[in-house]
Amino acid sequence: MKALTDLSADEIKTDGETGDSVKLYIVGIGTGSYEMLTVRAINALEQCDTIVGYQVYTRLIEDYFKEKRYLTTPMRQETQRCQLAVDEALKGHRVAVISSGDAGIYGMAGLMYEVLDGMKTDEGASKIKLEVIAGVTAANGGAAYLGAPLMHDFAIISLSDILTPWELIEKRLTACASADMGIALYNPSSRKRQDYLQKACDILLNVIPDTTVCGIVENIDRENTSVKVCTLGELRQQSVNMFTTVYIGNSTTKIIDGKMVTPRGYMNRI
Amino acid sequence: MKALTDLSADEIKTDGETGDSVKLYIVGIGTGSYEMLTVRAINALEQCDTIVGYQVYTRLIEDYFKEKRYLTTPMRQETQRCQLAVDEALKGHRVAVISSGDAGIYGMAGLMYEVLDGMKTDEGASKIKLEVIAGVTAANGGAAYLGAPLMHDFAIISLSDILTPWELIEKRLTACASADMGIALYNPSSRKRQDYLQKACDILLNVIPDTTVCGIVENIDRENTSVKVCTLGELRQQSVNMFTTVYIGNSTTKIIDGKMVTPRGYMNRI
Repeated sequence: MKALTDLSADEIKTDGETGDSVKLYIVGIGTGSYEMLTVRAINALEQCDTIVGYQVYTRLIEDYFKEKRYLTTPMRQETQRCQLAVDEALKGHRVAVISSGDAGIYGMAGLMYEVLDGMKTDEGASKIKLEVIAGVTAANGGAAYLGAPLMHDFAIISLSDILTPWELIEKRLTACASADMGIALYNPSSRKRQDYLQKACDILLNVIPDTTVCGIVENIDRENTSVKVCTLGELRQQSVNMFTTVYIGNSTTKIIDGKMVTPRGYMNRI
Repeated sequence: MKALTDLSADEIKTDGETGDSVKLYIVGIGTGSYEMLTVRAINALEQCDTIVGYQVYTRLIEDYFKEKRYLTTPMRQETQRCQLAVDEALKGHRVAVISSGDAGIYGMAGLMYEVLDGMKTDEGASKIKLEVIAGVTAANGGAAYLGAPLMHDFAIISLSDILTPWELIEKRLTACASADMGIALYNPSSRKRQDYLQKACDILLNVIPDTTVCGIVENIDRENTSVKVCTLGELRQQSVNMFTTVYIGNSTTKIIDGKMVTPRGYMNRI
């Protein structure tokens, strides 16, 4: 590995403890393959002895970071996962909590701050210093497969209504499409929400044409990555799952040689 | 460097040519330090002999990728930069065009597809196969410094009106704020647009309160990184530059121990 850049001493410190404080990493592991990890994420994970995460994500990295303790909690036990990480750090372990993509985009970073805040009267917990390490989120990773769908202003919206009222999701879809923004949709479907992409398309079709260029990427940077470019009208009929990221173009988005491309506007200047 | 993951042979091919085609990489180099490069970006840059980019960005990596030809064009000569990359690839060089952050987010990816499309009658150019390598964009990289500001649905909007009418930018700001979305602002200021952040704040203040939690990160992952959390009312008075990324929270965004945190909603479920 090459030399690190000119970061301040505090920033490159990866030895777990800084004076009286205990460092706890929250690491975005990128879209799914080792190749999409950043050098900073690799350095942090190599320094840790304990990696905490949802099992689907720990499995993505365990072949590359061996001799680590991997601790997992099931889906919907995110708060317990944060608590577990704090407990292990306070026992003296060097701990990283991982999220797929970017830990700061629908990942564990926010919840870690909240859980730690709830423990601030605890003398031990007050020593913990969180360090978030950003990663490549699915919107960006999938866009590279499609071509260049997100070259202009865009929004990331999750279709999961587990933590968000569906009415608010509808409002956001309408607002962004009405303002001619590109949109990347996360969590477009799940076993209990099989028709959510169809519902979202119907809302979008109220404000933008069915010829709008759209794209789908499934299993980004994992096995069986699949990519499809289609129209909004066709998107409504597509079958997607929780490993799919969906892209809605803006009014200028076009198909070039099979790729989904949203111009930034440079060509208009010539 | 560790082994690559199970990508298909075509995907891990980094030897410049695949049969009759000539590969040209468009690489996002991340927020600014070597540490924020992905393994895939490093592999691609190491394979290339020629790196094409805007000089501010080539300088960020030239210490880490030595013995390369660095070719640069000034700002506002993006189309010429793409043309240069194509010409060099057709001369037999292994070429990467770089963008800071993610090449697919206000970077060079879209323009490369457009420039190449304009040359499709050229037999040489038709052999070129573009490969976009996603990177960590400023919104994500800066968010990690602030805490966790982008944990829920959000938009990325550029305040530059060089290629976009200001009225459309205003419309997007109003739409996203009205739908209670977080916003990351790119290009909040430049020499000729010194009051643009103030103008944007005035538009936002028409729809969301001046107490909305906001954040500013300057020189993300470069020398003299600076971070500030403030209210929207205070943001209006801030001095920013072209190396600043600005964050507008949603109605739930709060300050926890000096950090800007947007809850995902997990804590409400307990």
